[in-house]
Amino acid sequence: MFISLEGIDGSGKSTQSRLLAEALRGRGHDVVLTREPGGSAGAEAIRRLLVEGDPDRWSPETELLLFNAARRDHLERLIRPALARGAWVVSDRFADSTRVYQGATRGDLRDLVDRLHALVIGQEPDLTIVIDMDPEVALTRGLARASGEDRFEEFGLPFQQKLRAGFLALAGDFPDRIRVIDGMADADTVAARIGALL
Amino acid sequence: MFISLEGIDGSGKSTQSRLLAEALRGRGHDVVLTREPGGSAGAEAIRRLLVEGDPDRWSPETELLLFNAARRDHLERLIRPALARGAWVVSDRFADSTRVYQGATRGDLRDLVDRLHALVIGQEPDLTIVIDMDPEVALTRGLARASGEDRFEEFGLPFQQKLRAGFLALAGDFPDRIRVIDGMADADTVAARIGALL
Ligand SMILES: Nc1ncnc2c1ncn2[C@@H]1O[C@H](COP(=O)(O)OP(=O)(O)O)[C@@H](O)[C@H]1O
Ligand SMILES: Nc1ncnc2c1ncn2[C@@H]1O[C@H](COP(=O)(O)OP(=O)(O)O)[C@@H](O)[C@H]1O
Ligand SMILES: [Mg+2]
Ligand SMILES: [Mg+2]
Repeated sequence: MFISLEGIDGSGKSTQSRLLAEALRGRGHDVVLTREPGGSAGAEAIRRLLVEGDPDRWSPETELLLFNAARRDHLERLIRPALARGAWVVSDRFADSTRVYQGATRGDLRDLVDRLHALVIGQEPDLTIVIDMDPEVALTRGLARASGEDRFEEFGLPFQQKLRAGFLALAGDFPDRIRVIDGMADADTVAARIGALL
Repeated sequence: MFISLEGIDGSGKSTQSRLLAEALRGRGHDVVLTREPGGSAGAEAIRRLLVEGDPDRWSPETELLLFNAARRDHLERLIRPALARGAWVVSDRFADSTRVYQGATRGDLRDLVDRLHALVIGQEPDLTIVIDMDPEVALTRGLARASGEDRFEEFGLPFQQKLRAGFLALAGDFPDRIRVIDGMADADTVAARIGALL
């Protein structure tokens, strides 16, 4: 079983991925907790190019190619081997982030996003949880982290509002795979909402 | 005018690119001398991921995506602006290296190479010079540099022999664009052979 968590920056994906992995381990599953961009040694090196530096460091097209390179490495070296041995994989972001960020927000590249995905990825999660929340609250949370990994947060509030709308629209496009949950509550309450889906 | 130099590792591309740029400047042209992977700030950062480290650091597919990301950045930020202002561009490697390395040697990915090129690059040089030479001599030259950028040279002699055959086959596929010259001579003699093509 491959589960991804999606949502805007600061919506609680990392927090909830960790809580979900713990809950699944509590049920006795072998769980691989991972994230994108990153998750494998090569993909983590590519991550640094993507999440650090100036917002205009890369064009949307170059950024898209880098995300696909990182995802291909992550898939080959971590996700597929884990699924093959029967583990559960919980990934903090996966291909839906690319559909929304590069496909509809950073650039209007959804057609190119879909073609690249078909050519070099071709894998979907079994279940995707979109954590929906107010971008103004999320942005405050996210920026508070001051991790240096703030290249996307630097794009600002209107960008995050477009992302939110993008994730909600995508959920409509993949009704069997994507579930939207309300992220405007304390972490344990949100975790219980996610647990109820499994 | 956009000119690329191609050939196996150690065949003299960097040396001849420099000599060609000097010769063109001597004729009064505005010349941009560049290289791949690299040539722009972003592409040079991607270059380090590609040319350093273990040979099996990346799969051929991930490597291909990284080369396309670097090329896209190089094209957008250096090559196209230079051509637009009327400069000559001399590039030490371009897309033919990807056709031969990832398309026919590292992996049998020529169809994927061509699709990606069409989707995100779509630019060919006006003239491509393939410097042909004995891989055994070239490999000795190349390894002598000890730059740390030896990830591809680590693949060894049979790999370089496949590359040589790949470049010669490619010249047959693009007879109007690609010229093959004999690189088994001193640098000035090779430079004169290249100069005679222009
Ligand atoms: N339900 C919540 N309520 C309040 N703060 C939260 C909640 N979930 C996460 N946070 C905090 O908000 C910030 C962003 O959460 P994080 O899980 O890193 O989000 P994301 O991974 O989606 O960017 C972190 O500082 C985290 O501790
Ligand atoms: N014609 C030549 N004869 C002998 N040595 C050469 C010649 N051209 C280049 N070299 C040397 O061979 C090495 C590889 O040349 P280089 O131009 O860096 O090749 P490439 O860029 O194709 O790998 C360098 O040390 C260079 O000085
Ligand atoms: Mg996070
Ligand atoms: Mg060189």
